[in-house]
Amino acid sequence: MPNYTLYYFNGRGRAEILRMMFAAAAVKYMDKRFEFNEWDKYRKDMPCMCVPVLEMDGGMRMPETMAIARYLAREYGFYPKNSMDMMRCDYIADCFYEIMHDYMRYYHWKNGRFRFGKDGMMGSDMGGNDCNYDNYMQWRYMNTFNRVMPFMERTLSMRNGGSNFFMGDQMMWCDMMCYCCMENPMMENQSMFSNYPKLMSLYKRVSAHPKISTYLKSRSNTNW
Amino acid sequence: MPNYTLYYFNGRGRAEILRMMFAAAAVKYMDKRFEFNEWDKYRKDMPCMCVPVLEMDGGMRMPETMAIARYLAREYGFYPKNSMDMMRCDYIADCFYEIMHDYMRYYHWKNGRFRFGKDGMMGSDMGGNDCNYDNYMQWRYMNTFNRVMPFMERTLSMRNGGSNFFMGDQMMWCDMMCYCCMENPMMENQSMFSNYPKLMSLYKRVSAHPKISTYLKSRSNTNW
Repeated sequence: MPNYTLYYFNGRGRAEILRMMFAAAAVKYMDKRFEFNEWDKYRKDMPCMCVPVLEMDGGMRMPETMAIARYLAREYGFYPKNSMDMMRCDYIADCFYEIMHDYMRYYHWKNGRFRFGKDGMMGSDMGGNDCNYDNYMQWRYMNTFNRVMPFMERTLSMRNGGSNFFMGDQMMWCDMMCYCCMENPMMENQSMFSNYPKLMSLYKRVSAHPKISTYLKSRSNTNW
Repeated sequence: MPNYTLYYFNGRGRAEILRMMFAAAAVKYMDKRFEFNEWDKYRKDMPCMCVPVLEMDGGMRMPETMAIARYLAREYGFYPKNSMDMMRCDYIADCFYEIMHDYMRYYHWKNGRFRFGKDGMMGSDMGGNDCNYDNYMQWRYMNTFNRVMPFMERTLSMRNGGSNFFMGDQMMWCDMMCYCCMENPMMENQSMFSNYPKLMSLYKRVSAHPKISTYLKSRSNTNW
């Protein structure tokens, strides 16, 4: 079994699905976290200047959250076995990732971390321009949320009436994606979820999973 | 073998990877296309109010481009066999999809199709606001392009010196994703690719694949 190092900011964000899978599988790994002001130091050594990145023994570094997640899900038994069920699990995970993707862009923008500047990647906001990009970012996130969530509530109901997990009796990686996607929005505004009682129950069910609940109690406490 | 119907706009866009896989596998399907002004008619019947959607015999409709792509890739032999290679193929495909995602948002915005309005999904631009969202959308796309492409050029070089396909001798779905992602940017500004000669060769190699070249000659001619 290879030794893994996971590189990410000191936050849950896109990396938390990977940390949760390691926890649920009881696999040890190096959880390498850094602050935003250290990013310049790490950035150029990451495959496509992005994190999370998973590094293996040999030093090989793999990018792309969802590709890493799929790999860990295969390795640790969080993927269904047949091709149709795999597709179902995939689109559920992708649906939640769509929300997370737009949420993360909104969240970091709002907090001034990644800004549109003349000189590229990070820079100051466009000087002298009254653009309220925050509004756009928030609209984008809310639009995706409102488009995806009703479908996820219906999809959950289709197996065991929605009283277990998305794929049935077993917790799969799509259930953990649901948890990770809902976590920050739940802290910010729980009323957004009042139309999605089955998803709220699933959220609690995932957090009550023996390995996950132990992990949640012991993990670093961060705002995002 | 099920009968498939693919729903999408009358464009290549996010659906083209699916059409290319059907073509490369010589599988017949119903290619259901509609215009933007017909979208309201279709929207509510799509799983999460988004296309592409794949419908099977029984009427079951599956969303999420990349989940559908992975399913077709498994069914038609465009996925590598071992888990490490699957991850590699996944992150390559995801990298190109990142570019495509930001390109599509930029392209449709520029062409006035999806606009940020007070009343939600589609509407007029924010009245009286001088925001140049086009600039933001273009910056976002170019930023992703410039971040991902050098890594893809290096990744391609790692097998057979980059003279075949991403995974080696066989064309896989990540190669077709590369093609689909590059197609519009290539038409618009070929000079963007001058630093990526191996990717440009791969682009030509995919288009010269016997089944793909036949498909490319016979498909509908659209701007995107």
